Amino acid sequence: VAVQEEKNGFKSLYAVQAERQEQAERSVLISCHSRTNEKKFLKHMSKHGDIKKYFFYESYGMYAVVEYANQESVASLFEGTAIPSISHESLVPFKSRLLSLRSLDSADLPNQPSGKKRQAQTSIPINELIQRLAKEESIDQQITSLTEAYQLTEENCRLRFLVCSLLKDIAAAFFPECTIKPFGSSVNGFGKLGCDLDMFLDLDSISGRNATMPKSGLLLEYQMKRANSERNVTQNILSVIGECVDQFGPGCVGVQKILNARCPLVRFAHQPSGFQCDLTANNRVAMKSTELLYLYGELDPRVRHLVFTVRCWARAHSITSSIPGAWISNFSLTVMVLFFLQRRSPPIIPTLDHLRDLAGPEDKSVIEDNDCTFVSDFTKIQLESNTETLEQLLCEFFEFYAAFSFRTRSINIRKGKEQNKPEVAPLHIQNPFETTLNVSKNVNATQLDRFVALCQESSWLLQQNKTAQSGVGTKGKAITPWGLSTLLLPSQVAAIKSRKR
Amino acid sequence: VAVQEEKNGFKSLYAVQAERQEQAERSVLISCHSRTNEKKFLKHMSKHGDIKKYFFYESYGMYAVVEYANQESVASLFEGTAIPSISHESLVPFKSRLLSLRSLDSADLPNQPSGKKRQAQTSIPINELIQRLAKEESIDQQITSLTEAYQLTEENCRLRFLVCSLLKDIAAAFFPECTIKPFGSSVNGFGKLGCDLDMFLDLDSISGRNATMPKSGLLLEYQMKRANSERNVTQNILSVIGECVDQFGPGCVGVQKILNARCPLVRFAHQPSGFQCDLTANNRVAMKSTELLYLYGELDPRVRHLVFTVRCWARAHSITSSIPGAWISNFSLTVMVLFFLQRRSPPIIPTLDHLRDLAGPEDKSVIEDNDCTFVSDFTKIQLESNTETLEQLLCEFFEFYAAFSFRTRSINIRKGKEQNKPEVAPLHIQNPFETTLNVSKNVNATQLDRFVALCQESSWLLQQNKTAQSGVGTKGKAITPWGLSTLLLPSQVAAIKSRKR
Ligand SMILES: Nc1nc2c(ncn2[C@@H]2O[C@H](COP(=O)(O)OP(=O)(O)OP(=O)(O)O)[C@@H](O)[C@H]2O)c(=O)[nH]1
Ligand SMILES: Nc1nc2c(ncn2[C@@H]2O[C@H](COP(=O)(O)OP(=O)(O)OP(=O)(O)O)[C@@H](O)[C@H]2O)c(=O)[nH]1
Ligand SMILES: [Mg+2]
Ligand SMILES: [Mg+2]
Repeated sequence: VAVQEEKNGFKSLYAVQAERQEQAERSVLISCHSRTNEKKFLKHMSKHGDIKKYFFYESYGMYAVVEYANQESVASLFEGTAIPSISHESLVPFKSRLLSLRSLDSADLPNQPSGKKRQAQTSIPINELIQRLAKEESIDQQITSLTEAYQLTEENCRLRFLVCSLLKDIAAAFFPECTIKPFGSSVNGFGKLGCDLDMFLDLDSISGRNATMPKSGLLLEYQMKRANSERNVTQNILSVIGECVDQFGPGCVGVQKILNARCPLVRFAHQPSGFQCDLTANNRVAMKSTELLYLYGELDPRVRHLVFTVRCWARAHSITSSIPGAWISNFSLTVMVLFFLQRRSPPIIPTLDHLRDLAGPEDKSVIEDNDCTFVSDFTKIQLESNTETLEQLLCEFFEFYAAFSFRTRSINIRKGKEQNKPEVAPLHIQNPFETTLNVSKNVNATQLDRFVALCQESSWLLQQNKTAQSGVGTKGKAITPWGLSTLLLPSQVAAIKSRKR
Repeated sequence: VAVQEEKNGFKSLYAVQAERQEQAERSVLISCHSRTNEKKFLKHMSKHGDIKKYFFYESYGMYAVVEYANQESVASLFEGTAIPSISHESLVPFKSRLLSLRSLDSADLPNQPSGKKRQAQTSIPINELIQRLAKEESIDQQITSLTEAYQLTEENCRLRFLVCSLLKDIAAAFFPECTIKPFGSSVNGFGKLGCDLDMFLDLDSISGRNATMPKSGLLLEYQMKRANSERNVTQNILSVIGECVDQFGPGCVGVQKILNARCPLVRFAHQPSGFQCDLTANNRVAMKSTELLYLYGELDPRVRHLVFTVRCWARAHSITSSIPGAWISNFSLTVMVLFFLQRRSPPIIPTLDHLRDLAGPEDKSVIEDNDCTFVSDFTKIQLESNTETLEQLLCEFFEFYAAFSFRTRSINIRKGKEQNKPEVAPLHIQNPFETTLNVSKNVNATQLDRFVALCQESSWLLQQNKTAQSGVGTKGKAITPWGLSTLLLPSQVAAIKSRKR
């Protein structure tokens, strides 16, 4: 259905996912000692085939991801892999592509892998970021620098797909034709290092669903367990997979089955990668929103920059949180940025209705009666020539929402226009695909007020700190924050504000 | 380890199992309508390859077992198999080799498969058996006739292995190298049609357990979940498999996880076969007892005949029961028959110690510190020439146990001699391999007394009814029970006894 080819340098999310998935299937994850001699390690691993790419990283210990050129190498590697013999304990003999490397040479030299290859999998602390931004020459540069510091690295992205692939091995036990796809910020282009890993068990490719029925004669069908509803089936499947992950999955801890949520899920921490994982199933609308966000992010680089900046700013002021609650979610915030960009004149990104109108027959998608159709061929989208700078846009963003009449109006990226609110929730953001739903119905008045107040402050602050303060920033001393960096320190915001008042 | 070849017409249980397992892998189970046209059915199935064997049977509906000559035919069959589309309900898309046949022709002729091919999977009712036995000419003939009526048929045996194979598909999801083997009366030669299906998940063949450790260099090991004990691992594995069977296994109902039993198990009913199933894991001693019983049964045909007769007699008088309790188990009863046969002079079967002494190095088996070694090569066993008839033996059996000093003595098939009881249990039968355990420690004094009293009565009854009563059994009328058949009707036993008293 989706377009697999690259068009004008753009790749559809579908194509990216297919490529990354295939890559992950050829990869293994190996727990090493920090003393591991890189050369010996590579020599050992190369016995089983050509290594296409590898890297080391730390997450409660040192790990390596090794991608072979061919999948057969993984099978060959397995043949030489032992089941550890441990005393006083017993093992569940479930074999996965998570291995441990042991060195039998006691006198191994502590020849660590070069620092260059040791990838950090978490984002830098906010204080460090503030320092780094203060050194930039313009607010535009600060914004791009923030994005670069926070966005997922190539390696982190690979690791995410590898964790999906390892989990797929468990699910494929029952559903050989299934896939497990990351969605949400892991792949929509707006993910920050350390963000959770949202996964989606896709059973749609299971063959025999729409087998063409012969007109006469005999027909064989699989006998299958029945349940009352699609939701019930999803719950049952997630329940079993959750059980498997809990009992068999090496490195999977803190498994929680949250099966009665609107969208049933299994949550667990994957220690070797450090990812907090959420596994859902049958969650195709979320995949469509992910595709949409990805597409918007690819259309103009300012989209990603602005989303990263706003997300980071919101997190610094506890507008968003890593735990669920009455606050604004990153997803809502992203939709708010998109809406703002649609409201520029000329608009930086088109409305969802426009993207739907551009769709070809191959793009048609209706999920549970919701029209999720929009164009996948990027070349069909004509953008208008808006030349606003990132600095302007950030400032305007704060002004836009400082003045937005949240009391009566609803945010609607489908129309690209404010609408009257259909319900009384403090913040109303129409769900782009399930249009009767409010993406931010969890948000209470207090949280919205905080957001609006902070937008006002930040807009004002940004005006005051448009240029780097000279005379500071001498060698060895901390540089005084300016521009974007002043927006990121909550205490600073309060201090400056009271000083100037 | 075990001898795979056939020796003098004897096949080791190991060889039988390997053959049956392989057969089962090539087989599928199909739910048909009773109207299914056999010819069309075969034509349809043959599209995917040569059919080596097939048969129909009934169990809450009509089913067929189809064994292909090659396993590829199963894969080919799957390609043409559809996932049913049902309304108001949803399906767990777990594909197994349990299929349903639908006929799309409304005007299909009710051309039923010939009766000959429709195998009964349950034993005949006891009343019918009594009638059948009454028609035999000698007690010896009655005994062999009883065995023939009750023993597992070729088809039932295949069905048992097929159910194991279907369950293996679920377990192999996680443990690709595992097997699920039937044990107990399904394969020890003493199974009655309708007996439960004891299964055993064998994870011993998982590779990499005893990988030869290189002296130096690097070694890769699987990362695996740890548990406190072997028992804990077994419980975790059975818990997950139980969950899968419950949620995904078509036709599997009433799943119970009995994980805190001495031997943790998952119990469920497999509706398409009608079998009550018990799945255990890591239960290698039970497999050894099964092998031993099988070997004894193969040594002399009188062993199986006597065991069948005694089991049937015990069931008729509620000495044994299908539910667990303070009564004697079929396993205990079998050991009692074996012990009795060892006590004949000359003995009909050798002691277990003798079988151990005949063992070669390839037979060595130590399981959890228990010596389970005994000879597997039947040709090494020299039997003494005892010529007693079945009638004599049955009569002597009753006399033997009517007079046995259960109060002080223990039954011991390892030594083939009574021993002093090491504990106060009413009935003490030494576990042949775990020699400190009492196989019948569950039995209370009441149950033992009932057994002894019935042995006395039956021994006496058999003397009184040694020949068929003439003058009865004329055409169309029920034949008066005599010989063995008088032993099977509880009320009859009481009646005759009071009449003659
Ligand atoms: N339609 C809809 N989709 C949602 C909603 N919340 C989350 N999603 C979808 O689920 C994805 C994952 O949700 P989250 O993990 O909360 O958000 P995220 O975009 O991954 O962002 P972070 O995990 O916070 O970095 C989002 O990207 C959306 O596609 C919602 O309220 N409505
Ligand atoms: N060592 C030992 N093994 C037992 C005991 N009970 C059962 N077993 C083993 O487990 C097998 C299955 O047990 P059951 O299903 O109770 O007995 P069975 O021989 O299959 O006979 P049925 O009543 O026809 O099922 C037996 O054949 C034995 O090999 C016991 O108390 N001790
Ligand atoms: Mg997320
Ligand atoms: Mg049994």
